[in-house]
Amino acid sequence: MSDDLLGELRRAASLVTDPDRVREASLDGRGRRQGRALAIVRPASTEETAEVLKICARHRARVIPQGGNTSNVEGATPDPDLTDREAARTILLQTHRLNRILEIDPVNNTAVVEAGVVLADLQRAAREAGRIFPLSLAAEGSARIGGVLATNAGGVHVLRYGSARSLVLGLEVVLADGRVLNLMRALRKDNSGYDLRDLFVGSEGTLGVITKAILKLEPAPRARRTLLLALGRLADVETLFTRLEAHCGPALEAFELIGRAPLETVLSAEGRTAPFELTDWTVLTDICTYGDTSDGQDDAREAALEDLLTDLMAAGAVTAGILSRSEADAQSLWALREGIPGAVKRAGGNVKHDVSVPRSRLVETIERTCALLTEHFPQCAPSIFGHYGDGNLHFNIGGVDSPAYAFEHEAQIRRIVHDAVLAAGGSIAAEHGVGAMKVAELERTKDAAELELMRALKRTLDPDGILNPGRVVRVEP
Amino acid sequence: MSDDLLGELRRAASLVTDPDRVREASLDGRGRRQGRALAIVRPASTEETAEVLKICARHRARVIPQGGNTSNVEGATPDPDLTDREAARTILLQTHRLNRILEIDPVNNTAVVEAGVVLADLQRAAREAGRIFPLSLAAEGSARIGGVLATNAGGVHVLRYGSARSLVLGLEVVLADGRVLNLMRALRKDNSGYDLRDLFVGSEGTLGVITKAILKLEPAPRARRTLLLALGRLADVETLFTRLEAHCGPALEAFELIGRAPLETVLSAEGRTAPFELTDWTVLTDICTYGDTSDGQDDAREAALEDLLTDLMAAGAVTAGILSRSEADAQSLWALREGIPGAVKRAGGNVKHDVSVPRSRLVETIERTCALLTEHFPQCAPSIFGHYGDGNLHFNIGGVDSPAYAFEHEAQIRRIVHDAVLAAGGSIAAEHGVGAMKVAELERTKDAAELELMRALKRTLDPDGILNPGRVVRVEP
Repeated sequence: MSDDLLGELRRAASLVTDPDRVREASLDGRGRRQGRALAIVRPASTEETAEVLKICARHRARVIPQGGNTSNVEGATPDPDLTDREAARTILLQTHRLNRILEIDPVNNTAVVEAGVVLADLQRAAREAGRIFPLSLAAEGSARIGGVLATNAGGVHVLRYGSARSLVLGLEVVLADGRVLNLMRALRKDNSGYDLRDLFVGSEGTLGVITKAILKLEPAPRARRTLLLALGRLADVETLFTRLEAHCGPALEAFELIGRAPLETVLSAEGRTAPFELTDWTVLTDICTYGDTSDGQDDAREAALEDLLTDLMAAGAVTAGILSRSEADAQSLWALREGIPGAVKRAGGNVKHDVSVPRSRLVETIERTCALLTEHFPQCAPSIFGHYGDGNLHFNIGGVDSPAYAFEHEAQIRRIVHDAVLAAGGSIAAEHGVGAMKVAELERTKDAAELELMRALKRTLDPDGILNPGRVVRVEP
Repeated sequence: MSDDLLGELRRAASLVTDPDRVREASLDGRGRRQGRALAIVRPASTEETAEVLKICARHRARVIPQGGNTSNVEGATPDPDLTDREAARTILLQTHRLNRILEIDPVNNTAVVEAGVVLADLQRAAREAGRIFPLSLAAEGSARIGGVLATNAGGVHVLRYGSARSLVLGLEVVLADGRVLNLMRALRKDNSGYDLRDLFVGSEGTLGVITKAILKLEPAPRARRTLLLALGRLADVETLFTRLEAHCGPALEAFELIGRAPLETVLSAEGRTAPFELTDWTVLTDICTYGDTSDGQDDAREAALEDLLTDLMAAGAVTAGILSRSEADAQSLWALREGIPGAVKRAGGNVKHDVSVPRSRLVETIERTCALLTEHFPQCAPSIFGHYGDGNLHFNIGGVDSPAYAFEHEAQIRRIVHDAVLAAGGSIAAEHGVGAMKVAELERTKDAAELELMRALKRTLDPDGILNPGRVVRVEP
C-alpha cells in the first residue's frame, strides 16, 4: 500500500523519502512536537499539486500542507501519536517549489504569486515596484504566502491594513479530491456568488490547499515617524490611542503596547539602557506620511504632533517619550519590540497566550486577569505585550524566580486567562490560529451551532477527512 | 395548509396579510417585476425570527428576507411566476421592526445594530459619537443594514474603506432550520475557526437571515477636499489616479470616473452649466484631512496639491478642474455624480450593467467594448460612469435618438458587455449582486468547480431550499 502510494507520488511530483529529512520537516515550528510521516512531496505546479491530491484521495492518505513551518500552534506538521499504519499514509505537502512571483501590477496595485513565495521576498518585490505589501510579522523571512493566507496571519500593521484576509483578492485552491478551484480574480468588487475565498483563508489547510493568490499592494509611505511613549497608568492607553487616531486618521499604522517585564527583558538581553524612566506600560506607534512635501509642511505637521504630546504629558497620560528623527531611529525603537520573543525565550520562556478582546475591554481584562492569576499563583509574573490597536495581546506568564513555576501550573493558568478573555467577548486564538494545540479548548468553549456548522463545512469540502486532520475542528471519521 | 401556516406565524410575530400591502412589498425595487406571496411577517427580535424560520421550515414555506427593498437585481422580492400553490407557501420576512442601534463603542470603534436599522440612521448615530460609518450609497435613506450586509454593498468609499464585508466584525444569523448562529464578536483579530461570517455576507439571504451585526466605525476626517477634473484622454485616468494615490495615500477617499454623456444628462436635467469645458471624461475625487491643524499646515498642503495638478495640466493629463473651497462646494460637486441615475431614468433609462475589471484593464475594456458595441449597434450610446478606484463601472447603454433602441437589443448588448468584461478577468456582478436577474448568466459563465461548490454550500446550509430560492445559485429541489 505505502509502496503504491510512494510510486504514484514519485511519478506525480518531486518526492523526499529520506527519513532524516522527513523527520526534520515533521518537527513543529517551535521544536516541541516530533510528528511522523511517510514522505515529503514537493509539487512545482498547480497541476502537480492536483495530481498529488488525487493520488492521496484515492489512497485515503492524510495530506499535511506545509509552507515555512513557522506555526506556533502545531498547524503545519503531522501528529506525533500516529500508529505505524497511519504514519504510512501521512504525506507532508511542501509548497517550497511553488515559489514564483508571477506578476506585479502597479496600476491595479496587485501581485500574483504562488503559494510557496516567502513573505519577505514578496515585500521586497513590492518595494522595488514602488509599492508595499504591508503584512509584516516576525517570521517573514521564512513564512510562505500559502501559510500566511491559510492561517490569516496578522502582525504589526493590522490596525491600518487588516489581517491577511484583507489583503487577498484572488485565490487558487486544490480541493481534497484534486479538483482545482479557480478564484483568481484581481477585483476589488465582485459580488458574483458566495465568498468561497474567505472560507479557505484561515482554514489552516483543512478545506483545501492554496496554490496561488492575488494580493493587494498598497502605496508606499514616504516616511514614518516612530514614537516610544511611557504611559502614566495602563488606562491612559485609551486616551493616547483615541487622541492619536483622531489626529492621524489612517496615518496611524501601528500601535503596540508593551509591559515593563518584557521591555526590561529585551533591554537587558541586548545590553541597552532604558531610553527614559520606565513606567509599567510603554506604547510604540508609527505615524506615516505620503507624497511630496515641503519643509514648511513637515515643520507644521511636527508642531501639531508636539502640541498633542505636550497636552498628553500635561494631563499625565504620557510621562516621557522619544520621537524618531530618521528611519534608523525608527528601526532602533522597533528592534526593542521585535527582540522581545527571542529575549524571553533565551531567558527560559513562559506560558504563552494569543488572545484578543474588544479594544474597549482590554484594560479591564489585563487588570482583572493579572489580579486573578496573582491571587491563585502568587509567584507568577505576567509578561504582556501586543497589538493594542487590534485588541490583540500576547498574554504570557512567567515566574517571579523561575520560568518553571508557570510551566508547572500551565493548565490552570491557561484556563484562567482563556476564561477571562472569553468573558470579555474575546478570542483565545487571535492571530496564530487553532492548529492542533487549541482544538480541544475550542470544543470546550465555542457555541454549539458554530461548531456544528464548522463540522458541516469540513464534511462538505473534505468528506474523507484527509486534509490536515485534527486541525481547527475534529470530525468523526 | 396556508391557514395552519398563517395561524402559526401570527402567534410567532407581527403578520400582514392585507393583499394590497403584500402586493406592494412584492414589487421589486426598480418597479419592474410584481412577485407573489402569501403574507409579510415582521419579527421584532431574534427569538421571533428564529420561531418564524422554524415554522416555515416545518411547512417547507419559502422565506424571502427583505430590508429596504432597494435591490437592483430582484434579490429581495418573490418570483412573479409562482403557481398558486407555491405562492401560498411564500412568506416575505421584513426586518423593519429589528431596528435598534444597540451600542456605539467609541473606544473599540464599533456599533452593534439590528438588521433593520436604516443605513442613514447608523451614519447619523456614528457622526453624533464623533465617528463615521463610511459605507455610503444612493439608497442609504431606505437601505437597511441586513440587506447592506447580505448583498455586500459597495458605494463610493470602497477605495478607502472596502465594501460592506470589510466593515463587519460580528454577525448573528438565523439558519434555515431556526437555529441561531451567534458570531457576535467585536474583534479585529479572531482566528478561532472557519470564517463563517463571510459566508453570509454577500449570500443575499439564501444561506441564513442576518438579525444583528457588529460594524466597524472609523475616525471622522476633519475636512475633505473635492476635485472635479477634466481628463485629456481616457488613458490619463491611470496617471491621475497613480499620482494622486502616491501623493495622498489613504487620504484619497473616492475616485469616480464620469463619461461625457451621463454628465451632460445630469447638467441638463438640473439646469446647471458645465463648470469648465467638458472633455470626454471627468474625474470626481475626494481627499480628506484629519486632526487639529494650523493655517501653515493647510497652506503647505494646498501648495503641494496645486503643484501636482499644475504638473498634470502641463502634461495634458488634466485639461481643467475645480477644487472645492468648502463642504458646500464639495456637496455641490457630488450632487452632479449623485444626480446621474435619476436624471438618466427621467430621460428614459438605459440598459444597465454593473461590472468590474482590474483597474489596469479598465481603459482598454471601455475602449474595446464601446468599439464592439458601435460596430454591431451603430445607434447605441454608451453612458458610462462609476468607481474607477475600485475598477467598478456602471456600463450603461442608451440609444443615440431614443432609449428604446438599446432596450430592443438588450440581450445582445448584455452579451457583448459581459463577455468583454469576463475576457478582461472581470465580474458581471460587481456591487449590486446576483439576485434573480443574473443567475442564468452566472450559470453560463462561471467555472464549473466554483458553481458546484456554491451549490454544495447551499445544500449544506439550506437542505430544503426554503431561503430566497432562485437567488444567487439554483439547486435542484
